[in-house]
Amino acid sequence: MKNKYIIPHNHTVSIQERGQIKGHQPVILWFTGLSGSGKSTIANIVEASLLENFSSHTTLLDGDNIRTGLNNDLGFSLTDRKENIRRIGEVCKLFHNAGLIVITAFISPLHEDRDTVRNLLPQGHFIEIFVDCPLEVCESRDPKNLSKKCFTSEPEKDGAVFPH
Amino acid sequence: MKNKYIIPHNHTVSIQERGQIKGHQPVILWFTGLSGSGKSTIANIVEASLLENFSSHTTLLDGDNIRTGLNNDLGFSLTDRKENIRRIGEVCKLFHNAGLIVITAFISPLHEDRDTVRNLLPQGHFIEIFVDCPLEVCESRDPKNLSKKCFTSEPEKDGAVFPH
Repeated sequence: MKNKYIIPHNHTVSIQERGQIKGHQPVILWFTGLSGSGKSTIANIVEASLLENFSSHTTLLDGDNIRTGLNNDLGFSLTDRKENIRRIGEVCKLFHNAGLIVITAFISPLHEDRDTVRNLLPQGHFIEIFVDCPLEVCESRDPKNLSKKCFTSEPEKDGAVFPH
Repeated sequence: MKNKYIIPHNHTVSIQERGQIKGHQPVILWFTGLSGSGKSTIANIVEASLLENFSSHTTLLDGDNIRTGLNNDLGFSLTDRKENIRRIGEVCKLFHNAGLIVITAFISPLHEDRDTVRNLLPQGHFIEIFVDCPLEVCESRDPKNLSKKCFTSEPEKDGAVFPH
């Protein structure tokens, strides 16, 4: 980063002011779990429920709108998967600064990558939700076998650490 | 892009619904112009005014929050500057989908790069604002000579095309 060319310019409208008019605290609801575990389905239900019951200002980030747009230059190598999560984390931070509730659905198997995102945000504003679904059930819902493709080899050998 | 691994998942909450509760149409106000022209200053005034007068749901993207975060891996080569604007465009699209008014302040000298962003959005939702300030005035406000550093050589030779 050549930050000698970056001149800070304080924003007139503060992060707090952007959030205040939304009537709720900005937060990231980070759904993690294997492909086929139901992350996207649950994330969608949560977003719809927040809108219906609380008129919450939300957005939903998932592979569908991230991998086809911002991260369409990234593949599935270990390096690219790390960069994928890093960029998503930075986008979450921008949405957080705008006062929104951000709901995400990414496999994000590595504890370290999730911590990268957590550390970008104020303490307690990154809420990790592990969609704990048995591997056999995920595989039965996953005809393209994406659960395995998201790892270099096998989940355990690849260092996947889901919370339990 | 390995899109065989990307399985579309329709969002339950539509782009329209996310925008409706904000009471205004999402739009991108894209400030372009030389370093020192006053882009950030004007962008900040516009954001503050939208909040004060209309309680608009806005966010402000500029070098300060983009180059130090999402794009902290990019330098100032021609390739990196194109990638910088591409990613900013994709982030604008995500904020647009969330219903916000996005105000941006980036030098963005190339017509082609601004068109990349424009083409990501519905027609009429990308509003380009050229901060037309004489070069001498920009230079007098620009002790680090960033106006010139943003080009490979001289603005004209580097293909800079600001609207006039």
